[in-house]
Amino acid sequence: MILEVAVLHIKQGLTREFEASFREASRIISSMKGYIKHELQSCIENDHQYILLVHWETLEDHTVGFRESQPYQEWKALLHHYYDPFPAVEHYELVQLDS
Amino acid sequence: MILEVAVLHIKQGLTREFEASFREASRIISSMKGYIKHELQSCIENDHQYILLVHWETLEDHTVGFRESQPYQEWKALLHHYYDPFPAVEHYELVQLDS
Repeated sequence: MILEVAVLHIKQGLTREFEASFREASRIISSMKGYIKHELQSCIENDHQYILLVHWETLEDHTVGFRESQPYQEWKALLHHYYDPFPAVEHYELVQLDS
Repeated sequence: MILEVAVLHIKQGLTREFEASFREASRIISSMKGYIKHELQSCIENDHQYILLVHWETLEDHTVGFRESQPYQEWKALLHHYYDPFPAVEHYELVQLDS
């Protein structure tokens, strides 16, 4: 399982619209192959900042399967105009702590 | 519920020792009042980068209850010398997406 992490900086005054668009966009990502779950969290220290966490079965489910899909074009159209700057996206793997 | 997020940059060559120390430190944080769960994830794009995600019942459980405790001194002694630069820590709240 892979964790996609993106810290999102939303243009001033647009957080309410962003959240509404994100609800719509959630339906897109949730339907993709390899998608497991996602959550959007809003930052307490900075009211125009969010973090998006998406769990995928594999890295390629995100980087190829989603990003090269037609639904990604709809995702982009819904969300990308809210971001300034455009977010860096990174991927993580769980470190086992019980050993 | 509050999500604490810290992106951790580990000094070159010390990731194995860091992970071992983190396992020990996990026992400290897991025993604190208001602690719910935590995970450490390692970055696929940068092998000296991690993200720490900790769920707390309230913001103060982390910022006051943990950080002003004696166990936090042990946590610091175990972990802080691995970081360069010292991490920024931010807190997030879940955005409800089902409405």
